[in-house]
This record gives sequence, C-alpha cells and structure tokens, in this order.
Amino acid sequence: MHRSQRTIFFISDGTGITAEMLGHSLLTQFEDIEFSQVVIPFVDSLAKAEECVARIEAARANSGTRPVVFTTLVDDRIREAVRRADALVLDFFDTFLAPLEAEFKAGSTHTAGRSHSVADSSGYQHRIEAINFTLAHDDGLGNTELKSADVVLLGVSRSGKTPTCLYLAMQFGIKAANCPLTPEDFERGKLPDAVESHIPRLYGLSITPERLARIRNERRPDSRYASLENCRYEVDQAERLMRRYGVKWVNSTTRSIEEIAAQILQDVKLVRRVF
Amino acid sequence: MHRSQRTIFFISDGTGITAEMLGHSLLTQFEDIEFSQVVIPFVDSLAKAEECVARIEAARANSGTRPVVFTTLVDDRIREAVRRADALVLDFFDTFLAPLEAEFKAGSTHTAGRSHSVADSSGYQHRIEAINFTLAHDDGLGNTELKSADVVLLGVSRSGKTPTCLYLAMQFGIKAANCPLTPEDFERGKLPDAVESHIPRLYGLSITPERLARIRNERRPDSRYASLENCRYEVDQAERLMRRYGVKWVNSTTRSIEEIAAQILQDVKLVRRVF
Repeated sequence: MHRSQRTIFFISDGTGITAEMLGHSLLTQFEDIEFSQVVIPFVDSLAKAEECVARIEAARANSGTRPVVFTTLVDDRIREAVRRADALVLDFFDTFLAPLEAEFKAGSTHTAGRSHSVADSSGYQHRIEAINFTLAHDDGLGNTELKSADVVLLGVSRSGKTPTCLYLAMQFGIKAANCPLTPEDFERGKLPDAVESHIPRLYGLSITPERLARIRNERRPDSRYASLENCRYEVDQAERLMRRYGVKWVNSTTRSIEEIAAQILQDVKLVRRVF
Repeated sequence: MHRSQRTIFFISDGTGITAEMLGHSLLTQFEDIEFSQVVIPFVDSLAKAEECVARIEAARANSGTRPVVFTTLVDDRIREAVRRADALVLDFFDTFLAPLEAEFKAGSTHTAGRSHSVADSSGYQHRIEAINFTLAHDDGLGNTELKSADVVLLGVSRSGKTPTCLYLAMQFGIKAANCPLTPEDFERGKLPDAVESHIPRLYGLSITPERLARIRNERRPDSRYASLENCRYEVDQAERLMRRYGVKWVNSTTRSIEEIAAQILQDVKLVRRVF
C-alpha cells in the first residue's frame, strides 16, 4: 500500500527548535504518514515570511497535498503573512499566549526569539561550565575533583556514560562525571577507589549483554572484549557491584538519552542549574 | 515593588522535555513575573496523576496564586485527572491533535512518551556516532579523518567551538570537528594545513575581544593569553584569515548555543541525520 505523504514546515523567528519539538511530539502520533520536513529559522521580516509562503505553495503543488506548518512567530504581522499560505498552520504563541495573559492579568512582551537567546546569561555560563567539567571528567579522568561533581555515572565500557553526561551538562547545567567499571574492579570486588567516597552521588547505567556485544563489535569486531560471553560477565558483575553498594541504576538498552537523563534527574534528586 | 510570583508545573507521561520547552518559550514573554518551576516526568498512571494534583494544590495553598500547568499527556483519563486541579492547565496534545487528525483524516495512535523514546533507533545511532566523532575530533585532534566531518569549526581558543560541536552532534546527528586558530597560524598567515583542503566545510566562530578576555581571564587570570590586547590581536587576525579564505563565520558573543547551531545549519546547508 502507498503510504500517504505530507510536507511539514517548522517556521520560527528564532532557532526553530521549539516549533520542531512541538511538531515532532505531535507527528510521532501518526504512524502511517510519511513526513518530509523543512525547518526555516530566523524568519523576522515580512519579506522572509513571503519567501516561506512561496516555499509552502511550491510544496503543495509538488506533492498534491496541503502542507502542515508549525510556527512560533511572535510578531502578529509576520504570523498573518505566513497564515495566508494554503496549508494547515498551527501557531503555538497564538494559541497559548492569550490564556496566559488572561491568567497573569499582564500583557506579554511579544519579543521574538527569546526562548533560545542568551537573555539568561547565567544559565549560559552554567551550561558551558558543566560541559567543560564533563569533558574534563570523562572516563574517570581527573578524579581528584570528583567532589565538585553533581553526579558520577558508573557503568561498563560502552554502556552510554559519555553521551548521557554531555546531555545532562548541555541541557540542565549539571556537572556530570563518569567512571568506568572494569574487569579489574570486578576481580577486586570493589568500586574504584576514586568513587568509593562519593556513594550518594553515584548512579549506574546498565545495558543488556546482547546490545552491549553489538555495540562493542562495531568498535572491535570479533574481540574477546566484544564477545557475548564477556559482555554477560561484565554486565552481571557490574550490577552485583552496584547492588552491593546500594547504587541505583537504569537500563539504557531501550531508552533514549533524554529518557535516561530525566530518570537520573528524578532518582538522584538533582538540582538543575538551567531551566 | 514586589514581583508577582507563580508556580509552574510541567507534567508529562515521557521525559517532560517537550512540555518544558514549550512552557519556557511562552513564559519568557512575561518578564515581570517570578516563576518557580517543577518538572514531573513519567506520569503514566492515574495514581501518579493524583499525586500531581496534590502537589499542585499544595503549591496553590502555599503561594496564594493559581499555578499554571503545562502538560503533554496523551492518555485522556490521565489528562482529565490532572485537569481537576485548581490551576490553569494547558495541554499541547489536546489542543493540536484534533486539527491534525482532521487534516490527515487519520486517527492518532495516542501512545504515550513517543517523542523522546528510541522508537527511531537509527536517529539514536546517528547521535551516538556523531558525539563520538566530535569527541575524537575536538581541538584539532585526529585530523586525518577530517574528510568524514560534516563541518569543521574554526576559531581562537575559547570562542565556543567545543560546546557548539557537541550540540550539533547531540541535537542533529551532525559530525562536527573543530580546529583552533592559533598565533602560529597568524604568523604563517595561513589556515592550519589539516583544514586547508576542507574549505567548503569550514565555518568560523568569532567573538568580541572584550568577552573573550573575560572568558580567558577566568581560566588564566592576568596572563598575556587573557589580556584584552592579545584578544584583540587574535580575533582580528582570525577574522582576516577567514575572510581571505572565504570562510563564513558567526559572532558567538550574544548568541546561545542553539542560535549558533541553527545559523551554521542554515549557512552550511547541512543535512541533518536526526529530526
């Protein structure tokens, strides 16, 4: 059967990130439609709005179906210009600002592109500091400063520690360090010395041995390191070790980076530096 | 004058990231109100919805003002349960799913927490690969593989290359390498050898000398490296060099990581691997 096809536009006076995220969260609810997606950021003039309309009309002519347009446009005139396109236009500010203004009994500033600007520069500084901290404390490096970490992630090699740490730093300004659990630790039957005094801030990442073996095989094909047998051993030992020390962990196998990060935030009760 | 105060809840059956981002982009429009924010992710049962209601009611009693609740709840019963709280409840799915269903003449799956799950695992792989690539090619390391980079960022030390690269990788699955421009390059009057053969994929980050000096002073106080005079020299030379080779750049001084990344995406016409 032919899947139906639609062109989706995300149009914003800022980065377009909010429009995109809103659109994606809605579109994932429609499984039988194939979407081709166009992001147009920085639409901050009537001329640019007209260009958008031309592109929407071209997509309509080309595909024979009406495009869907998600917009976050604060300026009324620009929004009205885009709305003239023959498309389903869903504007996010239009829909939600009015009830908020009524609730707060306050006018909004109607300032474009504020949500990902550096208006909040202390948030910006926290993110950069946290990213630098995370890079300096990746894979157990620089353990002497672990005491200033908000959280220290534990897990076997390739369990997803680094991307998770970077996401926590980037998104929430959280100083996330990480430390691998290795066969040497399993032989000693103890957590690495560097992290032993930081138990309340430790959090584990686990993974199914099958997925771990697949990931490791991409890196070192047919090695003992990547063998299913070794992966089973390491995962089992790592979970035993964490259980013994009362370290909570999450299984990363079927979770996205965002889901893992949200779970850690909730379980460790981390205070975010960036909202 | 006393600023007015409101408690804001972000309630989701998934990570809460979409609810938060949408909420923030709206709240930045209200400058005179102080918001205290509570994120409650993974609300996937009626019992958890009731807990949310209790917390909302407590915040209401505590602050004397009605809380505002942003939700992305797919399950009708859970959403209705949260809606019973005495608060302004704004639900994104509720508002936008109906017009989309009408447009697509299709029912939606009403599946919770899809937008940040690993349903799209090829996107997940692209992100992890891009993050690993970016870490391996940070600060000019591993130049031999630069030809597989989607983009190579140039700029003086501390101009923001690393966070921008990591964001491009994390958010869009783009393989972003970076290479510093140093006083040695300025003396030679040439781009570093490693990047000279990659001109179409180069993109620059510049910054005002004043801000650069501030950032460098945090790292190495009162050094020649951090002096305003030296920062002026380096920024001027870097911009001359980029101009000579026809390398586009963006000034990062007043822009957030998101804004810089969106600008690069647009200027270099990068093809995203993750939507």
